[in-house]
Amino acid sequence: MLIANYIMPSDYFYKRATVRNFKKEDISDELIKEIISAAMHSPTCGNMQLYTIIITREKHNHQKLSELHYSQPAASTSDVILTICADFNRFTKWCEISNAAPGYNNFHSFLNAFTDALIITQQIVTIAEQEGIGTCYLGTVLYNADKISELLKLPDLVIPVASLGLGWKNENPEISERLNLEAILHSEYYHNGSDEEIKEWFDKKFENPANKKFIIENNKNNLAQVFTDIRYPRKINEDLSILYLDLLKKKNFMK
Amino acid sequence: MLIANYIMPSDYFYKRATVRNFKKEDISDELIKEIISAAMHSPTCGNMQLYTIIITREKHNHQKLSELHYSQPAASTSDVILTICADFNRFTKWCEISNAAPGYNNFHSFLNAFTDALIITQQIVTIAEQEGIGTCYLGTVLYNADKISELLKLPDLVIPVASLGLGWKNENPEISERLNLEAILHSEYYHNGSDEEIKEWFDKKFENPANKKFIIENNKNNLAQVFTDIRYPRKINEDLSILYLDLLKKKNFMK
Repeated sequence: MLIANYIMPSDYFYKRATVRNFKKEDISDELIKEIISAAMHSPTCGNMQLYTIIITREKHNHQKLSELHYSQPAASTSDVILTICADFNRFTKWCEISNAAPGYNNFHSFLNAFTDALIITQQIVTIAEQEGIGTCYLGTVLYNADKISELLKLPDLVIPVASLGLGWKNENPEISERLNLEAILHSEYYHNGSDEEIKEWFDKKFENPANKKFIIENNKNNLAQVFTDIRYPRKINEDLSILYLDLLKKKNFMK
Repeated sequence: MLIANYIMPSDYFYKRATVRNFKKEDISDELIKEIISAAMHSPTCGNMQLYTIIITREKHNHQKLSELHYSQPAASTSDVILTICADFNRFTKWCEISNAAPGYNNFHSFLNAFTDALIITQQIVTIAEQEGIGTCYLGTVLYNADKISELLKLPDLVIPVASLGLGWKNENPEISERLNLEAILHSEYYHNGSDEEIKEWFDKKFENPANKKFIIENNKNNLAQVFTDIRYPRKINEDLSILYLDLLKKKNFMK
Protein backbone atom coordinates (compact mmCIF):
# COMPACT_ATOMS: atom_id res chain seq x y z
CA MET A 1 0.00 0.00 0.00
CA LEU A 2 1.06 3.55 -0.60
CA ILE A 3 1.66 5.13 2.79
CA ALA A 4 0.69 8.71 2.03
CA ASN A 5 -2.94 9.71 2.32
CA TYR A 6 -2.18 12.27 -0.34
CA ILE A 7 -3.05 15.15 1.88
CA MET A 8 -0.99 17.49 -0.20
CA PRO A 9 -0.57 21.00 1.09
CA SER A 10 -2.09 23.43 -1.38
CA ASP A 11 1.38 24.79 -2.06
CA TYR A 12 3.03 21.40 -2.61
CA PHE A 13 3.59 21.88 -6.31
CA TYR A 14 5.17 25.28 -5.68
CA LYS A 15 7.49 23.99 -2.97
CA ARG A 16 8.86 20.77 -4.38
CA ALA A 17 12.57 20.56 -5.08
CA THR A 18 15.00 18.04 -6.50
CA VAL A 19 17.02 16.04 -3.96
CA ARG A 20 20.59 15.04 -4.78
CA ASN A 21 21.75 13.41 -1.56
CA PHE A 22 20.17 10.37 -0.01
CA LYS A 23 20.31 8.43 3.26
CA LYS A 24 21.70 4.90 3.39
CA GLU A 25 18.28 3.42 3.87
CA ASP A 26 16.28 1.11 1.63
CA ILE A 27 13.12 2.00 -0.21
CA SER A 28 11.25 -1.31 -0.06
CA ASP A 29 10.62 -3.20 -3.28
CA GLU A 30 6.96 -3.18 -2.35
CA LEU A 31 6.80 0.60 -2.21
CA ILE A 32 8.60 0.93 -5.54
CA LYS A 33 6.10 -1.47 -7.06
CA GLU A 34 3.15 0.47 -5.65
CA ILE A 35 4.52 3.73 -6.99
CA ILE A 36 5.02 2.37 -10.49
CA SER A 37 1.68 0.54 -10.50
CA ALA A 38 -0.01 3.84 -9.69
CA ALA A 39 2.10 5.81 -12.19
CA MET A 40 1.11 3.37 -14.96
CA HIS A 41 -2.30 5.05 -14.99
CA SER A 42 -0.76 8.19 -16.44
CA PRO A 43 -1.79 8.87 -20.06
CA THR A 44 -0.21 6.75 -22.81
CA CYS A 45 -0.42 6.78 -26.61
CA GLY A 46 -3.34 4.55 -27.68
CA ASN A 47 -2.93 2.62 -24.40
CA MET A 48 0.16 1.00 -25.90
CA GLN A 49 2.37 1.79 -22.85
CA LEU A 50 5.50 2.32 -24.88
CA TYR A 51 7.96 2.20 -22.00
CA THR A 52 9.92 -0.19 -19.81
CA ILE A 53 11.52 0.73 -16.51
CA ILE A 54 14.70 -1.00 -15.37
CA ILE A 55 15.37 -0.83 -11.66
CA THR A 56 19.01 -1.03 -10.60
CA ARG A 57 19.49 -1.94 -6.97
CA GLU A 58 22.03 -4.80 -6.88
CA LYS A 59 25.31 -3.39 -5.55
CA HIS A 60 27.65 -4.24 -8.42
CA ASN A 61 25.22 -3.04 -11.12
CA HIS A 62 24.40 0.09 -9.13
CA GLN A 63 28.05 1.03 -8.99
CA LYS A 64 28.61 0.42 -12.69
CA LEU A 65 25.51 2.42 -13.61
CA SER A 66 26.48 5.24 -11.21
CA GLU A 67 29.83 5.47 -12.94
CA LEU A 68 28.03 5.90 -16.27
CA HIS A 69 26.32 8.86 -14.57
CA TYR A 70 29.79 10.24 -13.65
CA SER A 71 29.35 9.15 -10.02
CA GLN A 72 27.25 12.23 -9.26
CA PRO A 73 25.89 11.93 -5.70
CA ALA A 74 22.30 11.78 -6.98
CA ALA A 75 23.27 8.48 -8.60
CA SER A 76 25.95 7.11 -6.26
CA THR A 77 24.10 7.81 -2.99
CA SER A 78 20.70 6.76 -4.37
CA ASP A 79 19.05 3.62 -3.10
CA VAL A 80 17.85 2.69 -6.57
CA ILE A 81 18.26 4.07 -10.06
CA LEU A 82 15.37 3.81 -12.48
CA THR A 83 16.20 3.86 -16.18
CA ILE A 84 13.10 4.65 -18.16
CA CYS A 85 13.23 3.39 -21.74
CA ALA A 86 11.19 4.15 -24.83
CA ASP A 87 10.06 0.66 -25.82
CA PHE A 88 8.42 -0.45 -29.07
CA ASN A 89 9.90 -3.96 -28.76
CA ARG A 90 7.11 -5.42 -26.61
CA PHE A 91 4.29 -3.99 -28.70
CA THR A 92 5.97 -5.01 -31.97
CA LYS A 93 6.34 -8.58 -30.72
CA TRP A 94 2.68 -8.68 -29.74
CA CYS A 95 1.75 -7.58 -33.26
CA GLU A 96 3.98 -10.23 -34.80
CA ILE A 97 2.58 -13.09 -32.74
CA SER A 98 -0.91 -11.79 -33.59
CA ASN A 99 -0.31 -12.05 -37.31
CA ALA A 100 -0.36 -8.26 -37.69
CA ALA A 101 2.27 -6.19 -39.54
CA PRO A 102 3.93 -3.69 -37.17
CA GLY A 103 5.55 -0.54 -38.60
CA TYR A 104 7.21 1.03 -35.60
CA ASN A 105 10.90 1.07 -36.52
CA ASN A 106 10.86 4.76 -37.34
CA PHE A 107 11.41 8.19 -35.82
CA HIS A 108 7.74 9.03 -35.33
CA SER A 109 7.27 5.87 -33.27
CA PHE A 110 10.35 6.79 -31.22
CA LEU A 111 8.76 10.19 -30.48
CA ASN A 112 5.55 8.49 -29.34
CA ALA A 113 7.50 6.15 -27.07
CA PHE A 114 9.72 8.98 -25.79
CA THR A 115 6.57 10.92 -24.88
CA ASP A 116 5.00 7.96 -23.08
CA ALA A 117 8.23 7.36 -21.17
CA LEU A 118 8.57 10.96 -20.00
CA ILE A 119 4.94 11.12 -18.93
CA ILE A 120 5.27 8.10 -16.66
CA THR A 121 8.64 9.31 -15.39
CA GLN A 122 7.18 12.58 -14.16
CA GLN A 123 4.21 10.72 -12.65
CA ILE A 124 6.68 8.54 -10.72
CA VAL A 125 8.42 11.70 -9.46
CA THR A 126 5.17 13.19 -8.17
CA ILE A 127 4.00 9.98 -6.49
CA ALA A 128 7.41 9.22 -4.97
CA GLU A 129 7.59 12.76 -3.57
CA GLN A 130 4.18 12.23 -1.94
CA GLU A 131 5.70 9.26 -0.17
CA GLY A 132 8.53 11.44 1.14
CA ILE A 133 11.08 10.02 -1.28
CA GLY A 134 13.62 12.33 -2.85
CA THR A 135 14.04 12.23 -6.62
CA CYS A 136 16.56 13.50 -9.15
CA TYR A 137 16.52 13.31 -12.94
CA LEU A 138 19.92 12.18 -14.20
CA GLY A 139 20.29 14.07 -17.48
CA THR A 140 23.51 12.12 -18.03
CA VAL A 141 21.35 9.23 -19.26
CA LEU A 142 21.77 10.81 -22.72
CA TYR A 143 25.55 11.15 -22.34
CA ASN A 144 26.17 7.43 -22.04
CA ALA A 145 22.96 6.09 -23.57
CA ASP A 146 24.96 3.52 -25.59
CA LYS A 147 26.86 2.10 -22.60
CA ILE A 148 23.77 2.19 -20.37
CA SER A 149 21.93 0.33 -23.09
CA GLU A 150 24.61 -2.39 -23.07
CA LEU A 151 24.73 -2.63 -19.29
CA LEU A 152 20.96 -3.08 -19.05
CA LYS A 153 20.89 -5.46 -22.04
CA LEU A 154 18.35 -3.46 -24.00
CA PRO A 155 17.21 -5.10 -27.26
CA ASP A 156 16.13 -3.54 -30.57
CA LEU A 157 13.46 -0.82 -30.35
CA VAL A 158 14.32 -0.11 -26.70
CA ILE A 159 16.39 2.98 -25.84
CA PRO A 160 17.01 4.85 -22.56
CA VAL A 161 15.37 8.29 -22.44
CA ALA A 162 15.25 9.26 -18.75
CA SER A 163 16.77 8.23 -15.48
CA LEU A 164 15.89 8.87 -11.85
CA GLY A 165 17.92 8.52 -8.68
CA LEU A 166 15.58 7.72 -5.77
CA GLY A 167 16.25 7.63 -2.04
CA TRP A 168 15.20 8.92 1.35
CA LYS A 169 16.16 12.58 1.63
CA ASN A 170 19.43 13.49 3.27
CA GLU A 171 19.04 17.21 2.61
CA ASN A 172 16.36 19.87 2.38
CA PRO A 173 17.17 21.69 -0.81
CA GLU A 174 16.04 25.22 -1.45
CA ILE A 175 13.27 25.85 -3.94
CA SER A 176 14.69 26.91 -7.31
CA GLU A 177 13.72 30.26 -8.75
CA ARG A 178 11.85 30.12 -12.03
CA LEU A 179 11.22 32.55 -14.89
CA ASN A 180 8.26 34.91 -14.76
CA LEU A 181 5.06 33.34 -16.00
CA GLU A 182 4.92 35.80 -18.92
CA ALA A 183 8.16 34.30 -20.24
CA ILE A 184 6.59 30.84 -20.41
CA LEU A 185 2.87 31.23 -21.08
CA HIS A 186 2.07 32.98 -24.36
CA SER A 187 -1.43 33.93 -25.43
CA GLU A 188 -2.54 32.78 -28.91
CA TYR A 189 0.87 33.35 -30.58
CA TYR A 190 4.54 33.00 -29.68
CA HIS A 191 5.88 36.15 -28.12
CA ASN A 192 9.49 36.91 -28.97
CA GLY A 193 10.81 38.66 -25.87
CA SER A 194 12.78 41.85 -26.40
CA ASP A 195 16.42 41.87 -25.28
CA GLU A 196 15.38 43.87 -22.20
CA GLU A 197 12.63 41.42 -21.27
CA ILE A 198 14.86 38.38 -21.71
CA LYS A 199 17.64 39.94 -19.67
CA GLU A 200 15.21 40.85 -16.89
CA TRP A 201 13.64 37.36 -16.79
CA PHE A 202 16.96 35.53 -16.50
CA ASP A 203 18.66 38.09 -14.24
CA LYS A 204 15.85 37.75 -11.71
CA LYS A 205 15.85 33.97 -11.89
CA PHE A 206 19.57 33.45 -11.61
CA GLU A 207 20.30 36.11 -9.02
CA ASN A 208 21.59 34.10 -6.08
CA PRO A 209 24.91 33.60 -4.28
CA ALA A 210 25.47 30.07 -5.66
CA ASN A 211 25.39 31.35 -9.22
CA LYS A 212 27.72 34.25 -8.39
CA LYS A 213 30.16 31.70 -6.98
CA PHE A 214 29.97 29.65 -10.20
CA ILE A 215 30.97 32.71 -12.25
CA ILE A 216 33.98 33.46 -10.07
CA GLU A 217 35.10 29.83 -9.72
CA ASN A 218 34.99 29.35 -13.48
CA ASN A 219 36.66 32.67 -14.20
CA LYS A 220 33.81 33.86 -16.45
CA ASN A 221 32.22 37.26 -16.98
CA ASN A 222 28.66 36.14 -16.40
CA LEU A 223 26.45 33.10 -15.85
CA ALA A 224 25.50 32.69 -19.52
CA GLN A 225 29.18 31.96 -20.22
CA VAL A 226 29.17 29.31 -17.50
CA PHE A 227 26.35 27.60 -19.39
CA THR A 228 27.85 27.94 -22.88
CA ASP A 229 31.51 27.32 -22.01
CA ILE A 230 31.39 24.91 -19.06
CA ARG A 231 28.06 23.23 -18.43
CA TYR A 232 26.50 22.77 -21.88
CA PRO A 233 29.12 23.66 -24.52
CA ARG A 234 28.53 23.31 -28.25
CA LYS A 235 31.15 20.60 -28.80
CA ILE A 236 29.63 18.25 -26.22
CA ASN A 237 26.08 18.92 -27.46
CA GLU A 238 27.19 18.11 -31.00
CA ASP A 239 29.05 14.94 -29.99
CA LEU A 240 26.06 13.74 -27.97
CA SER A 241 23.75 14.45 -30.91
CA ILE A 242 25.79 12.07 -33.06
CA LEU A 243 25.94 9.47 -30.29
CA TYR A 244 22.18 9.40 -29.77
CA LEU A 245 21.29 9.48 -33.47
CA ASP A 246 23.68 6.57 -34.02
CA LEU A 247 22.07 4.67 -31.16
CA LEU A 248 18.61 5.34 -32.62
CA LYS A 249 19.83 3.78 -35.87
CA LYS A 250 21.41 0.85 -34.08
CA LYS A 251 18.20 0.27 -32.11
CA ASN A 252 16.28 0.20 -35.39
CA PHE A 253 14.29 3.41 -34.83
CA MET A 254 15.41 5.22 -38.01
CA LYS A 255 14.13 3.05 -40.87
CA MET B 1 -5.39 30.76 -5.89
CA LEU B 2 -5.63 27.09 -6.62
CA ILE B 3 -8.99 25.90 -5.33
CA ALA B 4 -8.11 22.35 -4.36
CA ASN B 5 -6.68 21.68 -0.94
CA TYR B 6 -4.90 18.76 -2.51
CA ILE B 7 -6.57 16.27 -0.31
CA MET B 8 -5.99 13.55 -2.83
CA PRO B 9 -7.60 10.21 -2.12
CA SER B 10 -4.89 7.59 -1.68
CA ASP B 11 -6.11 5.92 -4.84
CA TYR B 12 -6.21 9.07 -6.97
CA PHE B 13 -3.29 8.07 -9.17
CA TYR B 14 -4.87 4.67 -9.79
CA LYS B 15 -8.25 6.12 -10.70
CA ARG B 16 -7.46 9.02 -12.97
CA ALA B 17 -8.63 8.86 -16.57
CA THR B 18 -8.38 10.97 -19.67
CA VAL B 19 -11.43 13.14 -20.48
CA ARG B 20 -12.38 13.74 -24.12
CA ASN B 21 -15.64 15.66 -23.80
CA PHE B 22 -15.98 19.00 -22.10
CA LYS B 23 -18.75 21.32 -20.90
CA LYS B 24 -19.26 24.70 -22.52
CA GLU B 25 -17.91 26.51 -19.50
CA ASP B 26 -14.80 28.66 -19.12
CA ILE B 27 -11.73 27.79 -17.12
CA SER B 28 -10.71 31.22 -15.87
CA ASP B 29 -7.45 32.72 -17.08
CA GLU B 30 -6.48 33.11 -13.45
CA LEU B 31 -6.81 29.41 -12.76
CA ILE B 32 -4.81 28.51 -15.87
CA LYS B 33 -2.09 30.88 -14.73
CA GLU B 34 -2.03 29.35 -11.24
CA ILE B 35 -1.78 25.85 -12.64
CA ILE B 36 1.12 26.72 -14.92
CA SER B 37 2.89 28.78 -12.25
CA ALA B 38 2.77 25.75 -9.98
CA ALA B 39 3.77 23.32 -12.74
CA MET B 40 6.85 25.44 -13.51
CA HIS B 41 8.40 24.03 -10.34
CA SER B 42 8.67 20.63 -11.97
CA PRO B 43 12.27 19.57 -12.71
CA THR B 44 14.05 21.19 -15.65
CA CYS B 45 17.47 20.68 -17.27
CA GLY B 46 20.00 22.97 -15.55
CA ASN B 47 17.09 25.26 -14.58
CA MET B 48 17.00 26.44 -18.20
CA GLN B 49 13.21 25.89 -18.57
CA LEU B 50 13.42 24.86 -22.19
CA TYR B 51 9.72 25.16 -22.98
CA THR B 52 7.05 27.65 -23.96
CA ILE B 53 3.33 27.06 -23.66
CA ILE B 54 0.92 28.67 -26.10
CA ILE B 55 -2.66 28.93 -24.89
CA THR B 56 -5.33 28.98 -27.58
CA ARG B 57 -8.66 30.33 -26.39
CA GLU B 58 -9.75 32.96 -28.94
CA LYS B 59 -12.61 31.48 -30.99
CA HIS B 60 -11.19 31.76 -34.49
CA ASN B 61 -7.76 30.42 -33.50
CA HIS B 62 -9.32 27.65 -31.42
CA GLN B 63 -11.29 26.46 -34.43
CA LYS B 64 -8.30 26.52 -36.75
CA LEU B 65 -6.14 24.67 -34.23
CA SER B 66 -8.91 22.13 -33.56
CA GLU B 67 -9.05 21.42 -37.27
CA LEU B 68 -5.31 20.70 -37.24
CA HIS B 69 -6.18 18.13 -34.56
CA TYR B 70 -8.79 16.63 -36.96
CA SER B 71 -11.65 18.21 -34.99
CA GLN B 72 -11.51 15.43 -32.40
CA PRO B 73 -13.93 16.27 -29.56
CA ALA B 74 -11.05 16.53 -27.06
CA ALA B 75 -9.87 19.51 -29.11
CA SER B 76 -13.10 20.96 -30.50
CA THR B 77 -15.10 20.84 -27.25
CA SER B 78 -12.16 21.96 -25.08
CA ASP B 79 -12.23 25.36 -23.45
CA VAL B 80 -8.56 25.93 -24.18
CA ILE B 81 -5.82 24.07 -26.01
CA LEU B 82 -2.28 24.24 -24.69
CA THR B 83 0.51 23.65 -27.17
CA ILE B 84 3.69 22.84 -25.31
CA CYS B 85 6.83 23.62 -27.28
CA ALA B 86 10.46 22.60 -26.87
CA ASP B 87 12.15 26.03 -26.82
CA PHE B 88 15.85 26.83 -27.08
CA ASN B 89 15.14 30.21 -28.67
CA ARG B 90 14.73 32.16 -25.43
CA PHE B 91 17.83 30.68 -23.77
CA THR B 92 19.91 31.14 -26.92
CA LYS B 93 18.93 34.82 -27.10
CA TRP B 94 19.86 35.31 -23.47
CA CYS B 95 23.30 33.83 -24.20
CA GLU B 96 23.76 36.09 -27.22
CA ILE B 97 22.86 39.30 -25.38
CA SER B 98 25.20 38.15 -22.58
CA ASN B 99 28.18 37.89 -24.92
CA ALA B 100 28.24 34.10 -24.56
CA ALA B 101 28.39 31.59 -27.46
CA PRO B 102 25.33 29.31 -27.44
CA GLY B 103 25.56 25.90 -29.13
CA TYR B 104 22.01 24.61 -28.95
CA ASN B 105 21.02 24.18 -32.59
CA ASN B 106 21.47 20.41 -32.46
CA PHE B 107 19.61 17.18 -31.79
CA HIS B 108 20.90 16.69 -28.24
CA SER B 109 19.59 20.11 -27.26
CA PHE B 110 16.24 19.24 -28.85
CA LEU B 111 16.10 16.10 -26.68
CA ASN B 112 16.80 18.18 -23.56
CA ALA B 113 14.06 20.63 -24.47
CA PHE B 114 11.65 17.82 -25.42
CA THR B 115 12.25 16.27 -22.00
CA ASP B 116 11.67 19.56 -20.16
CA ALA B 117 8.48 20.15 -22.16
CA LEU B 118 7.01 16.72 -21.43
CA ILE B 119 7.84 16.98 -17.73
CA ILE B 120 5.93 20.24 -17.33
CA THR B 121 3.10 18.94 -19.50
CA GLN B 122 2.48 15.98 -17.22
CA GLN B 123 2.77 18.24 -14.16
CA ILE B 124 0.04 20.46 -15.68
CA VAL B 125 -2.13 17.37 -16.18
CA THR B 126 -1.78 16.31 -12.55
CA ILE B 127 -2.44 19.79 -11.14
CA ALA B 128 -5.36 20.47 -13.48
CA GLU B 129 -6.94 17.14 -12.52
CA GLN B 130 -6.65 18.13 -8.85
CA GLU B 131 -8.72 21.18 -9.71
CA GLY B 132 -11.39 18.98 -11.27
CA ILE B 133 -10.42 19.88 -14.81
CA GLY B 134 -10.47 17.19 -17.49
CA THR B 135 -7.38 16.78 -19.66
CA CYS B 136 -6.51 15.00 -22.87
CA TYR B 137 -3.17 14.70 -24.67
CA LEU B 138 -3.64 15.39 -28.38
CA GLY B 139 -1.12 13.08 -30.03
CA THR B 140 -2.06 14.68 -33.32
CA VAL B 141 0.28 17.55 -32.42
CA LEU B 142 2.98 15.51 -34.22
CA TYR B 143 0.77 14.93 -37.29
CA ASN B 144 0.49 18.59 -38.16
CA ALA B 145 3.48 19.96 -36.28
CA ASP B 146 4.46 22.08 -39.31
CA LYS B 147 1.05 23.73 -39.73
CA ILE B 148 0.60 24.17 -35.96
CA SER B 149 4.01 25.79 -35.89
CA GLU B 150 2.90 28.27 -38.57
CA LEU B 151 -0.43 29.01 -36.91
CA LEU B 152 1.23 29.76 -33.57
CA LYS B 153 4.05 31.74 -35.24
CA LEU B 154 6.84 29.70 -33.70
CA PRO B 155 10.35 30.99 -34.46
CA ASP B 156 13.64 29.09 -34.90
CA LEU B 157 14.54 26.64 -32.12
CA VAL B 158 10.90 26.34 -31.04
CA ILE B 159 8.90 23.25 -32.04
CA PRO B 160 5.60 21.78 -30.77
CA VAL B 161 6.03 18.52 -28.84
CA ALA B 162 2.83 18.05 -26.85
CA SER B 163 -0.70 19.37 -26.77
CA LEU B 164 -3.48 19.29 -24.19
CA GLY B 165 -7.19 19.87 -24.48
CA LEU B 166 -8.53 21.22 -21.17
CA GLY B 167 -12.09 21.74 -19.99
CA TRP B 168 -14.62 21.00 -17.30
CA LYS B 169 -15.62 17.34 -17.53
CA ASN B 170 -18.71 16.38 -19.48
CA GLU B 171 -18.21 12.65 -18.96
CA ASN B 172 -16.91 10.21 -16.39
CA PRO B 173 -14.69 7.94 -18.40
CA GLU B 174 -13.85 4.44 -17.23
CA ILE B 175 -10.39 3.70 -15.94
CA SER B 176 -8.22 2.13 -18.64
CA GLU B 177 -6.76 -1.31 -18.04
CA ARG B 178 -2.98 -1.45 -17.99
CA LEU B 179 -0.37 -4.16 -18.50
CA ASN B 180 0.78 -6.26 -15.56
CA LEU B 181 3.54 -4.62 -13.56
CA GLU B 182 5.95 -7.42 -14.52
CA ALA B 183 5.65 -6.37 -18.16
CA ILE B 184 6.81 -2.84 -17.32
CA LEU B 185 9.18 -3.03 -14.35
CA HIS B 186 12.29 -5.12 -14.99
CA SER B 187 14.86 -5.93 -12.33
CA GLU B 188 18.51 -5.16 -13.18
CA TYR B 189 18.27 -6.21 -16.85
CA TYR B 190 15.72 -6.02 -19.66
CA HIS B 191 13.47 -9.05 -19.67
CA ASN B 192 12.40 -10.19 -23.11
CA GLY B 193 8.92 -11.61 -22.55
CA SER B 194 8.17 -14.99 -24.11
CA ASP B 195 5.44 -15.14 -26.74
CA GLU B 196 3.11 -16.64 -24.12
CA GLU B 197 3.83 -13.87 -21.61
CA ILE B 198 3.35 -11.11 -24.15
CA LYS B 199 0.09 -12.61 -25.39
CA GLU B 200 -1.20 -12.94 -21.85
CA TRP B 201 -0.26 -9.37 -20.88
CA PHE B 202 -1.99 -7.78 -23.87
CA ASP B 203 -4.98 -10.15 -23.93
CA LYS B 204 -5.78 -9.28 -20.33
CA LYS B 205 -5.34 -5.55 -20.89
CA PHE B 206 -7.35 -5.29 -24.07
CA GLU B 207 -10.18 -7.63 -23.14
CA ASN B 208 -13.20 -5.36 -23.11
CA PRO B 209 -16.34 -4.87 -25.21
CA ALA B 210 -15.14 -1.61 -26.80
CA ASN B 211 -12.10 -3.34 -28.27
CA LYS B 212 -14.16 -6.26 -29.52
CA LYS B 213 -16.40 -3.75 -31.28
CA PHE B 214 -13.34 -2.13 -32.94
CA ILE B 215 -12.28 -5.49 -34.38
CA ILE B 216 -15.71 -6.19 -35.88
CA GLU B 217 -16.28 -2.64 -37.14
CA ASN B 218 -12.94 -2.65 -38.91
CA ASN B 219 -13.36 -6.15 -40.26
CA LYS B 220 -10.12 -7.40 -38.70
CA ASN B 221 -9.15 -10.72 -37.14
CA ASN B 222 -7.83 -9.25 -33.91
CA LEU B 223 -6.99 -6.01 -32.12
CA ALA B 224 -3.30 -6.01 -33.09
CA GLN B 225 -4.44 -5.66 -36.73
CA VAL B 226 -6.60 -2.69 -35.76
CA PHE B 227 -3.44 -1.02 -34.43
CA THR B 228 -1.18 -1.93 -37.36
CA ASP B 229 -3.67 -1.49 -40.22
CA ILE B 230 -5.99 1.29 -39.01
CA ARG B 231 -4.77 3.29 -36.03
CA TYR B 232 -0.97 3.42 -36.38
CA PRO B 233 -0.03 1.98 -39.79
CA ARG B 234 3.53 1.90 -41.12
CA LYS B 235 2.93 4.31 -44.00
CA ILE B 236 1.62 7.08 -41.75
CA ASN B 237 4.37 6.53 -39.17
CA GLU B 238 6.98 6.80 -41.91
CA ASP B 239 5.44 9.90 -43.47
CA LEU B 240 5.22 11.58 -40.06
CA SER B 241 8.85 10.68 -39.36
CA ILE B 242 9.91 12.59 -42.47
CA LEU B 243 7.63 15.51 -41.62
CA TYR B 244 9.00 15.95 -38.10
CA LEU B 245 12.67 15.45 -39.09
CA ASP B 246 12.20 18.07 -41.81
CA LEU B 247 10.64 20.45 -39.29
CA LEU B 248 13.54 19.86 -36.89
CA LYS B 249 15.91 20.88 -39.70
CA LYS B 250 13.79 23.90 -40.59
CA LYS B 251 13.69 24.97 -36.95
CA ASN B 252 17.48 24.75 -36.83
CA PHE B 253 17.73 21.81 -34.43
CA MET B 254 19.81 19.53 -36.67
CA LYS B 255 23.09 21.39 -37.21
